[in-house]
Amino acid sequence: MSNNLFFKNVGPLKIRQILEKLSLTITTNIDKNKLVHNFSSLVDANKNDITFFNSIKYKNEAESTNAFVCITKKELIKFLPKTCVSIASKNVLMHAAKIAGLFYPKSVTDMPNKHLRSINEIYKGDCGKNSFVGNNVKIGEGTSIGSNSIIEDNVIIGRNCIIGSNIIIRNTIIEDNVHILDSAIIGKKGFGFLPINNQNFRFPHIGYVLIKKNCEIGASTTIDRGSFSSTIIGDNTFIDNQVHIAHNVKIGKNCIIAGQVGIAGSAILGDNVMIGGQAGISGHLKIGNNVKIGGGSGVLKNLPDNSNVMGYPAKDIRKFIKENKNV
Amino acid sequence: MSNNLFFKNVGPLKIRQILEKLSLTITTNIDKNKLVHNFSSLVDANKNDITFFNSIKYKNEAESTNAFVCITKKELIKFLPKTCVSIASKNVLMHAAKIAGLFYPKSVTDMPNKHLRSINEIYKGDCGKNSFVGNNVKIGEGTSIGSNSIIEDNVIIGRNCIIGSNIIIRNTIIEDNVHILDSAIIGKKGFGFLPINNQNFRFPHIGYVLIKKNCEIGASTTIDRGSFSSTIIGDNTFIDNQVHIAHNVKIGKNCIIAGQVGIAGSAILGDNVMIGGQAGISGHLKIGNNVKIGGGSGVLKNLPDNSNVMGYPAKDIRKFIKENKNV
Amino acid sequence: MSNNLFFKNVGPLKIRQILEKLSLTITTNIDKNKLVHNFSSLVDANKNDITFFNSIKYKNEAESTNAFVCITKKELIKFLPKTCVSIASKNVLMHAAKIAGLFYPKSVTDMPNKHLRSINEIYKGDCGKNSFVGNNVKIGEGTSIGSNSIIEDNVIIGRNCIIGSNIIIRNTIIEDNVHILDSAIIGKKGFGFLPINNQNFRFPHIGYVLIKKNCEIGASTTIDRGSFSSTIIGDNTFIDNQVHIAHNVKIGKNCIIAGQVGIAGSAILGDNVMIGGQAGISGHLKIGNNVKIGGGSGVLKNLPDNSNVMGYPAKDIRKFIKENKNV
Repeated sequence: MSNNLFFKNVGPLKIRQILEKLSLTITTNIDKNKLVHNFSSLVDANKNDITFFNSIKYKNEAESTNAFVCITKKELIKFLPKTCVSIASKNVLMHAAKIAGLFYPKSVTDMPNKHLRSINEIYKGDCGKNSFVGNNVKIGEGTSIGSNSIIEDNVIIGRNCIIGSNIIIRNTIIEDNVHILDSAIIGKKGFGFLPINNQNFRFPHIGYVLIKKNCEIGASTTIDRGSFSSTIIGDNTFIDNQVHIAHNVKIGKNCIIAGQVGIAGSAILGDNVMIGGQAGISGHLKIGNNVKIGGGSGVLKNLPDNSNVMGYPAKDIRKFIKENKNV
Repeated sequence: MSNNLFFKNVGPLKIRQILEKLSLTITTNIDKNKLVHNFSSLVDANKNDITFFNSIKYKNEAESTNAFVCITKKELIKFLPKTCVSIASKNVLMHAAKIAGLFYPKSVTDMPNKHLRSINEIYKGDCGKNSFVGNNVKIGEGTSIGSNSIIEDNVIIGRNCIIGSNIIIRNTIIEDNVHILDSAIIGKKGFGFLPINNQNFRFPHIGYVLIKKNCEIGASTTIDRGSFSSTIIGDNTFIDNQVHIAHNVKIGKNCIIAGQVGIAGSAILGDNVMIGGQAGISGHLKIGNNVKIGGGSGVLKNLPDNSNVMGYPAKDIRKFIKENKNV
Repeated sequence: MSNNLFFKNVGPLKIRQILEKLSLTITTNIDKNKLVHNFSSLVDANKNDITFFNSIKYKNEAESTNAFVCITKKELIKFLPKTCVSIASKNVLMHAAKIAGLFYPKSVTDMPNKHLRSINEIYKGDCGKNSFVGNNVKIGEGTSIGSNSIIEDNVIIGRNCIIGSNIIIRNTIIEDNVHILDSAIIGKKGFGFLPINNQNFRFPHIGYVLIKKNCEIGASTTIDRGSFSSTIIGDNTFIDNQVHIAHNVKIGKNCIIAGQVGIAGSAILGDNVMIGGQAGISGHLKIGNNVKIGGGSGVLKNLPDNSNVMGYPAKDIRKFIKENKNV
C-alpha cells in the first residue's frame, strides 16, 4: 500500500487464515498455505499481495494487476489475469475492509497510546508543560511546542514549526515552517464505516496526513487521515479556526480557507482556492485552480478552474447576485 | 425528577423557605413549615413535591398531578386538584427554574471540581497520562482512556469503550463499546437561560447524557445534558467531528451524523436517520425514522418517516434537484 | 496604538532602521537617525510616531494627523500636513504590517510561552489540576478555574468568574462574573495575512479581547483578538458552543448567540441581537440593535435596528416565510 507509511503490516498471512476470518470459500485448486504478504490496490499490489476489484470502472487496472489474489464480484472475475487467484464475494468492500484490517489492525481504531513519554525525553527544543509523545515521533530543529499537547504515534514534524497547546497529532507528516494553532486535531481516523444495524463496521484508515511547508492550521480545526489514500494540505495553504477536513481530501498550494468551512471526504482542490467562512464542499468533488467560493456556500458539483461561486447550491456569483439583488 | 440521576437534592425545604427565596406569597391557609421534598414535573411529582404548570397544553397532566404544591398562572389554578396547594406567579418558568435551583444548586453552573484525582486511583485498566476523575465515576472493564482527559463528576462508562484524549465528560452514562474521540465535550449544561438585561438567569440542567452501546462520538463534538429531561444517543449511532447536540435532544438507533451538523434543543430523531455535513435541525422538531437530510440543509419543520430532504429550508430532495437543475 | 494594552513596544527605532528593514527609500531631506517611538493609526499617532494612510476614505484623518512619519501612496501625499514626513509605497498595507511587526514583534505569531508556571503559584483560589499561567496574568477573587487550562500571557480575569477546563486564553480582559466553558480558545491572533504565493505575510495582531461582565462563552468557542483594534463582547452577552468570533468583531450587550454561529472579521453588532444556530455574518458588516437573525441564515449586508431576518442571503423574515410557505 503505497499510501501506508506508518501502519505496521502484521503479514504475511496464509490464504487459509484470510478465508477463515472472512468465512469465505475458494473454488480454485490452490495451496491454501501459500502466504499473502500485503493488502494493496489493484495498481500497487505485487505478486504476493491481495487486492480487491469492486466496480467495472476499474476494469483496466484489473486487467493489468500483478496481485496474487483478488476479492471481487463473480461477474468481474473474467477481467482479472489468469495468474490472479480470484475470490468471489457478494460484499467486496466489506471483505476488502476486513482484509485490510487483518494486515493493519492498528489502523481501524485510534487506541490511545498508554506509554506516552514526556516530550522532553525526545526533544531538546522549546516546549511548554505536560506535552507528551508516542512512538515514531521526530521533531525538527527550531520547532516550538506548547503545553498539554499530545504528539501520538507516527508524527514527523519539520523545522521551525510552531505547534500550539492542547493539540493532538498522529500519523502525520508536517513540513518546515508550519503553524498548528491550539486544540487542532490532526491525523485521526476518518468517519468511514459500513453501516450495519447492530454494530457498524469501521473501515481501516491506513493513510496519513501530509501538511506541506509554510501552512497554517487554525485552532480547533480537525484534519482526518486517509483511509486507503492520504490527506494532503499543499504548500502555504492557510486554514482558519474550526474547519473540518475529512479523510482523503487533497488541497493544493496557496489556498485560503476561512473559519468553520467543511470539506467532505475525498474532495480534491486545486491551487489558489479561496473559501469563505462556513462554506461546505461535498465529498469526491473536484475543485479547480483559482476557484473562489463565497462564505456559506454549499458546493454540490465539480468546479472548473477560475470559477467564482456563491449560494446553496453554489452557482456563478454573478447569477447569485442577480437573483438576490432585491433582497 | 425521574430524569435526575446525578444531582443531589438538598431538600426537603420548608414552604416558607421557598416562598422567601422567590419573594412570593401564598393566600391559602396552610402551615408554611410543611416540608417539600423535591421539585418535579406534573407527572412525576409525588405528594411531597413541588411542580409547575405553565400552559393549558398540560391541562390533563395538571388535573391528575399528585404534587403537594404547584407554581402556576392565576388562570390555570382551576385545573389543579383540590389537594394541590397552588402558588400564583406571573412568571411561572422563572419561578420553576429558581425552585429547581433551590433543590439542585449544583445543576445550574458547571463549577469545576477542584478535588479531581488521578484516574489511576480508581481505574486499573489502560490509561494515558494526566487524566483525572471527579466524584461518582465508574469505568467498565476493557475500557481505554487517553491523556489529559477529565472525567468530571457523575460519569458511568461501560465496558470496552475507547475514550480519547483531551476529553471532558460529566453527568453522563456511556454504555458498552462506545468510542469517544479526542476533545469531545459531553454532559455540560445546555445553553438555557431566561434572558434578562442585567444578568441572564440560567436554567438548572438536572438531566444527563445517555450514550447507548456501540456509538461513536467524533472529535471536538459537544453533547449537552438535558435541562429537565435527558439527552440520548441511541444504539450504534455514529457522529462525526465538530457536531453540536444541544440539551434534551433524543437521537434514535443506527443514525449517521456527518461533520459540523448542529441539532438544536429538544429535537427528537428516529432510527436510521442520515444527516449530511453542516446540516442543521431546529429546536423541538420531530424527525421520523429512516429520514435522509442532505449536507448543508436547514430543517425547519417536522419530517415524517422515510423523508428525503435537502435545502434551506429543507424540502423534498426531488423538488430541490428539480429547482436547481440549471445551477 | 490605543488598542495595544499588552504587546511590548520595542521602539524607539531610527527612521534609517525602518527604511532598511522595508527596503524603502525616502526623498525628503531628513535626519534618518531621528527616532520613531511607536506605530499607530492616523488618529492616535503622536508627534514621534509612524502611521499609514492607505485610502482616500481616510482623507480627513490624514489632514489632521499629528504623526511624525506616514507611509502612504504617492498620490495621497498631498493630503498630509507639511509637518508629516511621507514615505511613498506601492503596497501601503504590507509596509504598515511590517512596521507594526518591527515595533511589536510578539504580536505576529503566538509563540507558546515555554516558561509557564503552575497556576497555584499566583492564585490561591479554587483551581483544578495542571492549569498553568504565563506572564502578566491577574485573577480576581472568587474565580474558579478548571483543569488543564492555560492562561497564557497578558490575561486579566475579574472576580467571581468560572473558567472551565482545557481552556486557552491570552491577551484578554475578562470582567466580573463571566463564565468561560470548557475548551474555549480566547485571544489568539486572528486569521489575517497578506496572501503571497511562497509564504503568506502574517499581519500583526496588536489588539486584545475584552469580555465584559456577566457574559457566558460556550464550549469550544473561539474568539480571536483584534489586529489594530480590539474584539469586544458586551455585558451579559451569552454565546453557545462552537461559535467563532473573528478578529476586531464588536458585539453589544445582552446578545444571544446560538451554537456554531460564525461572525467574520470586523463585524459590529448592536445590543440585544439574537442569532440562531449556524448563522453566519460576513466581515465588516454593521448589525443594529434588537436584530433577530434566524438559524442557518447568511447575513451579507448591513441590518438596521429591529430587523428580523432569515435565509441565505438573509432577508426580512416575512418575505422568507412567504417565499417558502409551500416547502
